[in-house]
Amino acid sequence: MSHVLVINGPNLNMLGIREPGMYGSLSLSDIEDQLKKLAEQLGMDVSFFQSNHEGALIDRIHAALGQADGILINPGALTHYSYALRDALTTVNLPVVEVHMSNIHAREEFRHTSVTAPISVGQIAGFGDYSYELGLLALHRYLNSSR
Amino acid sequence: MSHVLVINGPNLNMLGIREPGMYGSLSLSDIEDQLKKLAEQLGMDVSFFQSNHEGALIDRIHAALGQADGILINPGALTHYSYALRDALTTVNLPVVEVHMSNIHAREEFRHTSVTAPISVGQIAGFGDYSYELGLLALHRYLNSSR
Amino acid sequence: MSHVLVINGPNLNMLGIREPGMYGSLSLSDIEDQLKKLAEQLGMDVSFFQSNHEGALIDRIHAALGQADGILINPGALTHYSYALRDALTTVNLPVVEVHMSNIHAREEFRHTSVTAPISVGQIAGFGDYSYELGLLALHRYLNSSR
Amino acid sequence: MSHVLVINGPNLNMLGIREPGMYGSLSLSDIEDQLKKLAEQLGMDVSFFQSNHEGALIDRIHAALGQADGILINPGALTHYSYALRDALTTVNLPVVEVHMSNIHAREEFRHTSVTAPISVGQIAGFGDYSYELGLLALHRYLNSSR
Amino acid sequence: MSHVLVINGPNLNMLGIREPGMYGSLSLSDIEDQLKKLAEQLGMDVSFFQSNHEGALIDRIHAALGQADGILINPGALTHYSYALRDALTTVNLPVVEVHMSNIHAREEFRHTSVTAPISVGQIAGFGDYSYELGLLALHRYLNSSR
Amino acid sequence: MSHVLVINGPNLNMLGIREPGMYGSLSLSDIEDQLKKLAEQLGMDVSFFQSNHEGALIDRIHAALGQADGILINPGALTHYSYALRDALTTVNLPVVEVHMSNIHAREEFRHTSVTAPISVGQIAGFGDYSYELGLLALHRYLNSSR
Amino acid sequence: MSHVLVINGPNLNMLGIREPGMYGSLSLSDIEDQLKKLAEQLGMDVSFFQSNHEGALIDRIHAALGQADGILINPGALTHYSYALRDALTTVNLPVVEVHMSNIHAREEFRHTSVTAPISVGQIAGFGDYSYELGLLALHRYLNSSR
Amino acid sequence: MSHVLVINGPNLNMLGIREPGMYGSLSLSDIEDQLKKLAEQLGMDVSFFQSNHEGALIDRIHAALGQADGILINPGALTHYSYALRDALTTVNLPVVEVHMSNIHAREEFRHTSVTAPISVGQIAGFGDYSYELGLLALHRYLNSSR
Amino acid sequence: MSHVLVINGPNLNMLGIREPGMYGSLSLSDIEDQLKKLAEQLGMDVSFFQSNHEGALIDRIHAALGQADGILINPGALTHYSYALRDALTTVNLPVVEVHMSNIHAREEFRHTSVTAPISVGQIAGFGDYSYELGLLALHRYLNSSR
Amino acid sequence: MSHVLVINGPNLNMLGIREPGMYGSLSLSDIEDQLKKLAEQLGMDVSFFQSNHEGALIDRIHAALGQADGILINPGALTHYSYALRDALTTVNLPVVEVHMSNIHAREEFRHTSVTAPISVGQIAGFGDYSYELGLLALHRYLNSSR
Amino acid sequence: MSHVLVINGPNLNMLGIREPGMYGSLSLSDIEDQLKKLAEQLGMDVSFFQSNHEGALIDRIHAALGQADGILINPGALTHYSYALRDALTTVNLPVVEVHMSNIHAREEFRHTSVTAPISVGQIAGFGDYSYELGLLALHRYLNSSR
Amino acid sequence: MSHVLVINGPNLNMLGIREPGMYGSLSLSDIEDQLKKLAEQLGMDVSFFQSNHEGALIDRIHAALGQADGILINPGALTHYSYALRDALTTVNLPVVEVHMSNIHAREEFRHTSVTAPISVGQIAGFGDYSYELGLLALHRYLNSSR
Repeated sequence: MSHVLVINGPNLNMLGIREPGMYGSLSLSDIEDQLKKLAEQLGMDVSFFQSNHEGALIDRIHAALGQADGILINPGALTHYSYALRDALTTVNLPVVEVHMSNIHAREEFRHTSVTAPISVGQIAGFGDYSYELGLLALHRYLNSSR
Repeated sequence: MSHVLVINGPNLNMLGIREPGMYGSLSLSDIEDQLKKLAEQLGMDVSFFQSNHEGALIDRIHAALGQADGILINPGALTHYSYALRDALTTVNLPVVEVHMSNIHAREEFRHTSVTAPISVGQIAGFGDYSYELGLLALHRYLNSSR
Repeated sequence: MSHVLVINGPNLNMLGIREPGMYGSLSLSDIEDQLKKLAEQLGMDVSFFQSNHEGALIDRIHAALGQADGILINPGALTHYSYALRDALTTVNLPVVEVHMSNIHAREEFRHTSVTAPISVGQIAGFGDYSYELGLLALHRYLNSSR
Repeated sequence: MSHVLVINGPNLNMLGIREPGMYGSLSLSDIEDQLKKLAEQLGMDVSFFQSNHEGALIDRIHAALGQADGILINPGALTHYSYALRDALTTVNLPVVEVHMSNIHAREEFRHTSVTAPISVGQIAGFGDYSYELGLLALHRYLNSSR
Repeated sequence: MSHVLVINGPNLNMLGIREPGMYGSLSLSDIEDQLKKLAEQLGMDVSFFQSNHEGALIDRIHAALGQADGILINPGALTHYSYALRDALTTVNLPVVEVHMSNIHAREEFRHTSVTAPISVGQIAGFGDYSYELGLLALHRYLNSSR
Repeated sequence: MSHVLVINGPNLNMLGIREPGMYGSLSLSDIEDQLKKLAEQLGMDVSFFQSNHEGALIDRIHAALGQADGILINPGALTHYSYALRDALTTVNLPVVEVHMSNIHAREEFRHTSVTAPISVGQIAGFGDYSYELGLLALHRYLNSSR
Repeated sequence: MSHVLVINGPNLNMLGIREPGMYGSLSLSDIEDQLKKLAEQLGMDVSFFQSNHEGALIDRIHAALGQADGILINPGALTHYSYALRDALTTVNLPVVEVHMSNIHAREEFRHTSVTAPISVGQIAGFGDYSYELGLLALHRYLNSSR
Repeated sequence: MSHVLVINGPNLNMLGIREPGMYGSLSLSDIEDQLKKLAEQLGMDVSFFQSNHEGALIDRIHAALGQADGILINPGALTHYSYALRDALTTVNLPVVEVHMSNIHAREEFRHTSVTAPISVGQIAGFGDYSYELGLLALHRYLNSSR
Repeated sequence: MSHVLVINGPNLNMLGIREPGMYGSLSLSDIEDQLKKLAEQLGMDVSFFQSNHEGALIDRIHAALGQADGILINPGALTHYSYALRDALTTVNLPVVEVHMSNIHAREEFRHTSVTAPISVGQIAGFGDYSYELGLLALHRYLNSSR
Repeated sequence: MSHVLVINGPNLNMLGIREPGMYGSLSLSDIEDQLKKLAEQLGMDVSFFQSNHEGALIDRIHAALGQADGILINPGALTHYSYALRDALTTVNLPVVEVHMSNIHAREEFRHTSVTAPISVGQIAGFGDYSYELGLLALHRYLNSSR
Repeated sequence: MSHVLVINGPNLNMLGIREPGMYGSLSLSDIEDQLKKLAEQLGMDVSFFQSNHEGALIDRIHAALGQADGILINPGALTHYSYALRDALTTVNLPVVEVHMSNIHAREEFRHTSVTAPISVGQIAGFGDYSYELGLLALHRYLNSSR
Repeated sequence: MSHVLVINGPNLNMLGIREPGMYGSLSLSDIEDQLKKLAEQLGMDVSFFQSNHEGALIDRIHAALGQADGILINPGALTHYSYALRDALTTVNLPVVEVHMSNIHAREEFRHTSVTAPISVGQIAGFGDYSYELGLLALHRYLNSSR
């Protein structure tokens, strides 16, 4: 049974509160519940972590070494500048799937660049809370096919 | 029952032949068969179109007006420069999901920019043939939620 | 009696359907009828061609050699990247007037650059279907004054 | 009866003298006479203003408030950098048509950018003195259609 | 008693008329009255100058030499390109406070750059007519502290 | 009585110690005392928070939801790159006034860009510790006028 | 006996007609005849294809798989933007020699960049119709040396 | 006897007052006196004009037509952005020598670009008031040699 | 006896684990042991700090004030964007030597820029764990020579 | 009988030694021997010069004036920055053919720009030692056709 | 009696031969003779050096230390890239006047930048051989005024 | 016993003379003496070469083939543009350590880029003459560890 670490970056604790027009009305724990259900269906195990602290995210990623088989991450705004987060993901050498609720390619110029996407398996953006479920499916497939 | 038009751009007719290391060994019709099965499970109807001609792709998109409820598209290399394709998608005013088999964010600089993503619902890249299935799931969810 | 070839590029077959807020409610054949009437008043002869295929547009421009005295063109989105279209217009060495229905200078950044304008007599943008009539008048004047 | 203010910017007082190869042999008052005739045919009223002073142009534009129904402007070289002129045009909130005698898109790089075009109805460039007549026709049509 | 010269650049004579949604309903003389009252409270003396002419603004700044102790300026759109205005302010070697009613950092790209800010004491932007009062307070404090 | 949260970012705990030539000799608590006095005069309530941790600043901003009426912030060097901080400020949807002690427009190139200014009401820079008082006055006026 | 596919892109059907000052007076079939003769001397077999349609060029390249040993191509203006053509050439994994009649490095800025050269064996530009013969010689040598 | 018009742009009326460390202690009329003496020695006739108004400079340049044989100009800060001044100089079609007292190539980035130098005979910068005398010598030689 | 604070930024706690091909097989504490030995030989005193939290690094640097004589720092990926870290180093006004194990000038484009190098004494990159020892030697020499 | 000067720039004396994987195993004198044979077949005369000194290359090019009919040059890395070499080639006003053994368009970004190509007849790149022979053929044809 | 070293860079030995339309018909020794005469009139002593070798120019500049009072230099194309030449001029710490025969600001883009001008007293460009005489006059004045 | 070639580029022969504030008072031969002593301690053999001629540096590097085990180089200003030097270093395929006395990252923009660093083992900058000793230590360690 493969284990996936689901990581959420800055401000994603405010889901359901922050700009509901853009991010929908579900809270982060609603989304985590959805993922837990989907993981069960897929025969996977998930754990969750959210922080507004770049450093805490890095610490948690390091801790995943030898513990998780893959990482599902929404780095929030750190997507666009945190080379430290990028290096953390490279360090643990686990497959990463990057997800975004909004379509970052359709927003401000600075959101068009992801510093973490080039070291990920792939990126999914624009499908609201469903981006997470698609990401988990993608990671599930990736882990199975690369065995 | 919603209908989805699946469009593939230049060179995707060569799947299974072209750079199997990057694109996998499935042919385009293998992928279309997979999508047909998934569509059936989702209670959707799919039709397919592939062309190496930008103009033919545009003609086909226009023809989707009043016929399809959404478009799943892998524009191939046109992704990076075909503003005409972008305008065609805007013209018919249907929800679009853009998919790529490879992780375009991890390849040559010119592949990092999509001119069609800003007018799509979202983009999925990096999961090989499974990108298409994820895209169909995403479009299915989008069509249901926006009803 | 001078003859003018009126060329419309990708997506302009959808006029009246595509974004009526931006492009008005007239269809392309409505506009062509208007131009035919104006041409008669000006003692000119017009023929029309529209295609979504860059190659078909180039073929048609080549065919104008020795047949037309000038070209009135709305290259649609090809305006912004089709150096092949530009070279086709240079090849036949006829006076070209470029028209746009919308004010391309007031839209997305990529629409501010025209690769065909530098090899045209002039450019007219922003006056809806009337841009075509202005363009025909301009071409009429140009052809008369350069005799 | 609608009233149009025709504004000419720096160096356009030298028409007929300045680079006749590029700008033709008509003087500015010749052009103004042509426009007066055309305005009469169209049932419009025109007044004229030319200055080499950015400030005088702005003062005159302000004075048009409540007096003119539209502005036909050739800002000369101010086209490329006078944000103050742009703001003046925005301030009076009248429809603006921008004209150029030469095809600015075919000249030096710095002439390819217009800071006033984005706040205009449209732009016409490249038809010598006839650009002004086309501009007046365009403004006439715009004022009638937006009534 | 220190004397402050309050300078307003192009189009600011149109305050209350120009885009009231962005600039509020007060006229420039209303704002000048407010400043006069505040100056009295602060024990300062103010004089005012507005022009749409870059040259007139420069002339007025030169005349402030030996007459004023500081300059409060809203250069309007000249902010973004008038190096001549910048040099005029440097020439008289007086402390300058730059103010803007709108938040220039939140508007069009070209408004994000100020050529006068680097030679000013500081910049205040975004508080409507109150930007002027804040600017006068800032200049008052600066003049007192640097004595 | 409106409540304002005053936030100071990295290194501002070192005020009075760090580069006194540029930042003056007052400590951060001296400045906070000044603000407390001014707030009392204005009938406002202030609370203070400083951290060198981007994450802690974000946590504190989230906590302001339903607690504060506005935010006065000096993000320190985070001004120039912390899109996460920007998103935190957008999330709580409170009016923000950004202040800087030094004139950031007159310093190194990288300090000319603020990623938080575009989502603030306005920005004040260059007046030393007095920038904070001006910022509080601005926020006071904004809160009163928007009631 | 090795087989070479000679491909000509948009507007090259007009050789001899188009800008003879730049491209010489030979027609495309004259050039093809020259190449046929040279091929015979070299013991090679050649076939020819020209189209103004990007899509047709791609289709033809695909068809070369298992049929040709190498491709000699003058992509015309597609050289500068057709990533789809580039991908087609990569797909069939045949050695490509790119030729241009004019010296593209000495012409307009946009002609200095080739999107197909980086995936070719090499590039030859500037020698009129003789560029093709040089290209065939180069391909001949390449095919022999890599056996 | 050839006649030279000596033009000085914005802020040069302040010479001797403005930044004496950079521009020396001579006033503009001191410099004009020097030039008058040198002109006499060279058998030339000079007249002078200074203005802080771009428009007035343009008016004066126009008036030089048929009156002056050459123009010696220090455009001040207009050097870096006034395309209108550039066009005025082109309009009268007289030889222009551009001078600067300071070495503009050694100062702020924005001073490295001159929009008037490309249409001048040449440029002299960095020799204080002596730049003017060198410029007059250069113009003298140019006028003699081109006879 | 001079005291040196050795600071390591994000992900350097993973040395020996992270990409051993690039960073070698020593752990961070192995490196710290080496440095301790070298410091003893040099008659210096060292203390160590590592954190994945930008804020914690800044806090620690502040604490060095009056405690350390110099700082040896490997900022990890923060090198490339943390202006807050840069300001922290400037704040305490201690000599800084920046070291990197890999040759950052030979890696991805974004690693070529260091925001901390310009405020350091110097930079050493590319010598694996030995970069630290070289850095300590450099700091030792700097401290001795500047006494 | 026409005479050709064959010039090789820096590091080409090391052919056969330097990166044989990229440049092949032939030495420069092997290549010169090949060229001598080909020249004989073509009824041409060749002389050779190689230097690692930009100045020596320029001296040799100057000496070719009145001695050679054309220049075949591989400028090595000087291709990318030596404007002095470019000017030397322009000075002697002889036809130049530029050759490169490797495909410079497929290597590092800096190798994509040639400062000498714009003043050459044409450029040939990517065919190893055979690039020289192709270059000599091209020069032979050019010299014959322009007689 | 002050001594001036006159240095000419690459290709200037070809004056009179190279592009006489741009550089005139005088040879370099003609120009040196003119300068010698002018120097005598000014009571100065001149020596001359020309080389096509950057290194030889640097050696000669070094040798000027303690020997010359100033340097008059036309660096030829090295102007645009030779930072080594720039450093040589800085090293000897002598006043430098940079001259160019052609108006470099009116030629190709790459000639608009001078890497030596920022460390010179000033720059003179565009007056043919007379640029040298103007440069000597400028240096003469500089040396006298700074005594 | 390993042998190291120490190479110094343009202007480094002037050490002790050139800008002592930046480069210290030691001459190059003083530094070479220091290096000789350190080499002896390390059991290494060193030879030295300095030239102001790019070509001479390249010749010397070529000569090191089969003679030296590593190269310690301070390319002076050639660091920033000499791709020919870079290729010379690549050609001989020896480990290179690049050193700079000044902190090039803290000086003019053009000094921030090194074209030789990407093909070196590492770079050391900012420690005056001690940079050379650190470089030799680094090379010593590199040579030992890679045996």
